[in-house]
Amino acid sequence: MGGGVDHLESERNKAEFDVDAMKIVWAGSSHVLQVSERIARLVASDPAFRKDNRPNLGRKELFKNTLRKATYAWKRIIELGLNEEEASLLRTFVDEPAFTDLHWAMFVPAIKGQGTEEQQQKWLPLAHKMQIIGCYAQTELGHGSNVQGLETTATFDPKTDEFVIHSPTLTSSKWWPGGLGKVSTHAIVYARLIIDGQDYGVNGFIVQLRSLDDHLPLPGITVGDIGMKFGNGAYNTMDNGVLRFDNVRIPRDQMLMRVSQVTREGKFVQSNVPRQLVYGTMVFVRQTIVAGASDALSRAVCIATRYSAVRRQFGSRNGGPETQVIDYKTQQARLFPLLASAYAFRYVGEWLNWLYTDVTQRLQAGDFSTLPEAHACTAGLKSVTTSVTADGIEECRKLCGGHGYLCSSGLPELFAAYVPTCTYEGDNIVLQLQVARHLVKTISQLGSRKKPVGTTAYLGRLEQLLQYRSDVQKAEDWLKPNVVLGAFEARAARKIVAVAQNLSKFSNPEEGFQELSADLVEAAVAHCQLIIVSKFIEKLQEDIPGKGVKQQLESLSSIYALSLLHKHLGDFLSTGSITPQQGDLANEQLRSLYSQIRPNAIALVDAFNHTDHYLGSVLGSYDGNVYPKLYEEARKDPLNDSVVPDGYQEYIRPLLKQQLRNARL
Amino acid sequence: MGGGVDHLESERNKAEFDVDAMKIVWAGSSHVLQVSERIARLVASDPAFRKDNRPNLGRKELFKNTLRKATYAWKRIIELGLNEEEASLLRTFVDEPAFTDLHWAMFVPAIKGQGTEEQQQKWLPLAHKMQIIGCYAQTELGHGSNVQGLETTATFDPKTDEFVIHSPTLTSSKWWPGGLGKVSTHAIVYARLIIDGQDYGVNGFIVQLRSLDDHLPLPGITVGDIGMKFGNGAYNTMDNGVLRFDNVRIPRDQMLMRVSQVTREGKFVQSNVPRQLVYGTMVFVRQTIVAGASDALSRAVCIATRYSAVRRQFGSRNGGPETQVIDYKTQQARLFPLLASAYAFRYVGEWLNWLYTDVTQRLQAGDFSTLPEAHACTAGLKSVTTSVTADGIEECRKLCGGHGYLCSSGLPELFAAYVPTCTYEGDNIVLQLQVARHLVKTISQLGSRKKPVGTTAYLGRLEQLLQYRSDVQKAEDWLKPNVVLGAFEARAARKIVAVAQNLSKFSNPEEGFQELSADLVEAAVAHCQLIIVSKFIEKLQEDIPGKGVKQQLESLSSIYALSLLHKHLGDFLSTGSITPQQGDLANEQLRSLYSQIRPNAIALVDAFNHTDHYLGSVLGSYDGNVYPKLYEEARKDPLNDSVVPDGYQEYIRPLLKQQLRNARL
Repeated sequence: MGGGVDHLESERNKAEFDVDAMKIVWAGSSHVLQVSERIARLVASDPAFRKDNRPNLGRKELFKNTLRKATYAWKRIIELGLNEEEASLLRTFVDEPAFTDLHWAMFVPAIKGQGTEEQQQKWLPLAHKMQIIGCYAQTELGHGSNVQGLETTATFDPKTDEFVIHSPTLTSSKWWPGGLGKVSTHAIVYARLIIDGQDYGVNGFIVQLRSLDDHLPLPGITVGDIGMKFGNGAYNTMDNGVLRFDNVRIPRDQMLMRVSQVTREGKFVQSNVPRQLVYGTMVFVRQTIVAGASDALSRAVCIATRYSAVRRQFGSRNGGPETQVIDYKTQQARLFPLLASAYAFRYVGEWLNWLYTDVTQRLQAGDFSTLPEAHACTAGLKSVTTSVTADGIEECRKLCGGHGYLCSSGLPELFAAYVPTCTYEGDNIVLQLQVARHLVKTISQLGSRKKPVGTTAYLGRLEQLLQYRSDVQKAEDWLKPNVVLGAFEARAARKIVAVAQNLSKFSNPEEGFQELSADLVEAAVAHCQLIIVSKFIEKLQEDIPGKGVKQQLESLSSIYALSLLHKHLGDFLSTGSITPQQGDLANEQLRSLYSQIRPNAIALVDAFNHTDHYLGSVLGSYDGNVYPKLYEEARKDPLNDSVVPDGYQEYIRPLLKQQLRNARL
Repeated sequence: MGGGVDHLESERNKAEFDVDAMKIVWAGSSHVLQVSERIARLVASDPAFRKDNRPNLGRKELFKNTLRKATYAWKRIIELGLNEEEASLLRTFVDEPAFTDLHWAMFVPAIKGQGTEEQQQKWLPLAHKMQIIGCYAQTELGHGSNVQGLETTATFDPKTDEFVIHSPTLTSSKWWPGGLGKVSTHAIVYARLIIDGQDYGVNGFIVQLRSLDDHLPLPGITVGDIGMKFGNGAYNTMDNGVLRFDNVRIPRDQMLMRVSQVTREGKFVQSNVPRQLVYGTMVFVRQTIVAGASDALSRAVCIATRYSAVRRQFGSRNGGPETQVIDYKTQQARLFPLLASAYAFRYVGEWLNWLYTDVTQRLQAGDFSTLPEAHACTAGLKSVTTSVTADGIEECRKLCGGHGYLCSSGLPELFAAYVPTCTYEGDNIVLQLQVARHLVKTISQLGSRKKPVGTTAYLGRLEQLLQYRSDVQKAEDWLKPNVVLGAFEARAARKIVAVAQNLSKFSNPEEGFQELSADLVEAAVAHCQLIIVSKFIEKLQEDIPGKGVKQQLESLSSIYALSLLHKHLGDFLSTGSITPQQGDLANEQLRSLYSQIRPNAIALVDAFNHTDHYLGSVLGSYDGNVYPKLYEEARKDPLNDSVVPDGYQEYIRPLLKQQLRNARL
């Protein structure tokens, strides 16, 4: 074993398509593939970015190490003169949550999006050079999803032309912001604007937290870390923080004033900049989360697929080797839908990227007509893709059997670092309720002149969809894109109509919405799954070069749709979108697709082009040399520093020797 | 806040039933309730058993602390003269995986079950006094579920009357056994018995690993820890180990010889003790796992329910308090089915306990007729209850929003410590395939004189079940036990028949079994869910004292069944067990049951009688005083030892001051 042998070579030889061409399709373009590969290798080959020791480090050591890496990464970015795309990729491949994430992804964009020209000119150069480090202080100990419920106050003092930032209660303490606890010098603080006793709602303020001389908190500011979070390593590299204000004063010009202003006289004024811009930003942030979902899921799937090809169990004949675990249909039925989902999320993420550009151009031209649909669509896709990814990573861990439970498999940390995505930037259930609200509204306006747009356009054909009957007669019929789309459209439309009809029975609509909220979420999920299915199918209308590449993507697209159909069979049957027999045929087709994809499985995860460093998994390493690596990793545990463990003399020996009476325990 | 105020008092006052009576029903008897409560308080009130600091400890410190606690627990057991029941409860409430778990739950029972009278007389007294500490060394680096694939050899040497234990390959290294890495002095080692070149299959051997004088590994033995596992604290308190043998010799009488013997002459002999006894032991172990599932799920549900009553979000009217999260139907639709599952698993666990006694009595009387059914039934229930519990704990964590991600919520550690249960003592998918095999066999024998017994008895009414049509006409019809049973029986029977028919189309039955394995698992799950539903209903036929107690259990039983029906609607519809309209009515009834259970929710989790120490969660503490406790816990993080973090001078300052060129990073 070892020594450069590729234990997965025979698997790679089975592939029926051009892996290099698939890499380009996955990356989006050869340019992106090349840049990603160059930066990924740069990180992987630099021992300063080593991350395999994270699970063994105590909190302080872990955090200090992250400070070192983040600063070193910035140094390298400057030395190598990396552009924004490259710098961002470098941070991705370093793969360690750090204060810099919030600085670049939240603090800087908040100033860009909500600051005036003047404010941008003052603050952005400092932030761009990291002469100040910023975070984003919105959520509070007692307040998360409901931003309008925040308690922190910013009271205008006309005498001094200042705002007084204050935490009136314990529950108003800022709680969770990443980078806040130990590092950030500044924060965008969201607080209720109070002028002359009147509450003008929540606004953003730039507040300096720490001295730039000695890093001590400024007077009136109490700040600290909120403690350990789920998992080893994972998000414990981040200083999520708590922050309290005791009447902290900031100059009036540190309120972010692009949309709303407070004048010297204490007058509250709205600018002519449309408030809807905020939604444009949300579309952007959530689109990056969808792209991230596909990336995280692809890592888990890559690990589980490679290990499933290495691992053997049962089925030995005449003393020969046992069967590869990946050849079991139970393994395939759990693994391959996740493989297909990783690809599906990739392409819906690509499309969302286009949607964001489209919405931005329209906003700039004063066209707000597509914004509500685009906003609902991104909210729903953020919810569906991150939920599936979180569960999918854990499923991949289980697919690796016992060894998936070891930190060296990489999966525990991937899971623990991923799951907060289901909660932040919109709780996944709250988001689906927003989608449902939009869908119900769309249905109610069908008679009017407002035609449904974008991903809700199919609801314009409602009459037809309510009449729809699937014409599937044999298993292969399920390979036809129109057959799949028909069933998914009928199911989504009928779910939405059914819940809308039930809603109309309530005299108080809000009461109905609350009572039926679980059904509303189901309808919203059905709609979002249709979007992903249809965008994958649209992708396949493109000209896709490379031997066999398109065929593989077609198989994956079918697996994605049919495995969803099987999982949500109750929806399809209860709405009469398909018959039980057609459901059985879909399942039959699915089994045959699993057999088709099987020889290509390893090549399909190779196409993600993950380095061993980025995967961080001895089960998922490229060469499949699993067992010696597991052994090697085990040796590194601090418990193995000595043969006889610390504590033997004090505890084990007295126990064995029956000398407990006077033992100090 | 704080100071003994019960923040959940108004919730407790809403309860419509006698909580103390429910505590007895949950515990199983007033005796068990009293003993549990006494021992739980003993542990909770002793600062030596503190566990809230676990997430902050590095591996060595954590492990040493566990050694101290385990030894101290043993000292207390002796000092207080606790009996076996009390000692076992004490270890449960200490709630920290340790080498003692394996010693008592695997090593001692293995000698009892597989050792001869002589072997028991020699080894058990030593083990009972803990003069030796033992573990259970079965799985290997390359071999888990398939015990027959183990590679370790035990070769009989007739010259010296010894066995030579040897690890011939890297993959034959023992890997995973708890207590092995650093503590155990002895192990039951499973190895292939080789006599005169012939392989007699896998047998158990008692092997001493470490010197009783200085704890050093004996010659030829290499042993160590396998490294960090999922989560903070969690199973990292356990020294799961790796073990290799280089021709280690043990006397012949250290093979466990109750069932098979090797004579002085090297002859392999089978005793008249039935091999089936092994299955009896499996029934026992898996029954305790089912009981454990209900316990773990009840802890998660208790935390999520209490916090959902404290947490408020949205819905504030006229500046009043926001709505309690538990009042949202989306929260109820996720939380209450898990609450119902905790109760359902409790009673199916109780029933399994009876089943084990029944099987044991029959085995002793030479009656093996019910063993296959009992074995399949416990395997299936282990699989279903542990899978639901693992996913359920994570769902409860998500139901606690952002704060569920903090270690101080207790949920991350509960999850990480629980998930291996899905893999050990039988991988959950492998187990369901065993159940499916048994069901298909049962169906195939229906024409013969072998009548289906126990939980498969309903298959004896197959003709009738294939004709079954549910007569539900209004939502309340779903409250009738027979209506629920009818639908679940029809669904399970038809799923089994359908897959059996598909199997019969294959000329090679094993090939068919492999091809259809995912469908077989679904059929097995349907069967197991029926068992749990029916045992809950049977429980309700008993006389259950206490005001309102039975009514609450009836609601929970209905919620359990109807939420399953909703989740697996596709099964019920595709088999024609119910109509889509009847499915809608079930959903309608479910919503109304959620409203009925809502005022009782807090009291229903109080009935679990968990101490704050055992829960280990600031979100789930009895008095609901969540926010000050979160604050207090955060302060304890090592990062908060200093205001300016370690690493500021080396990394943050040079970054802010643009002095990176010569920084040592």
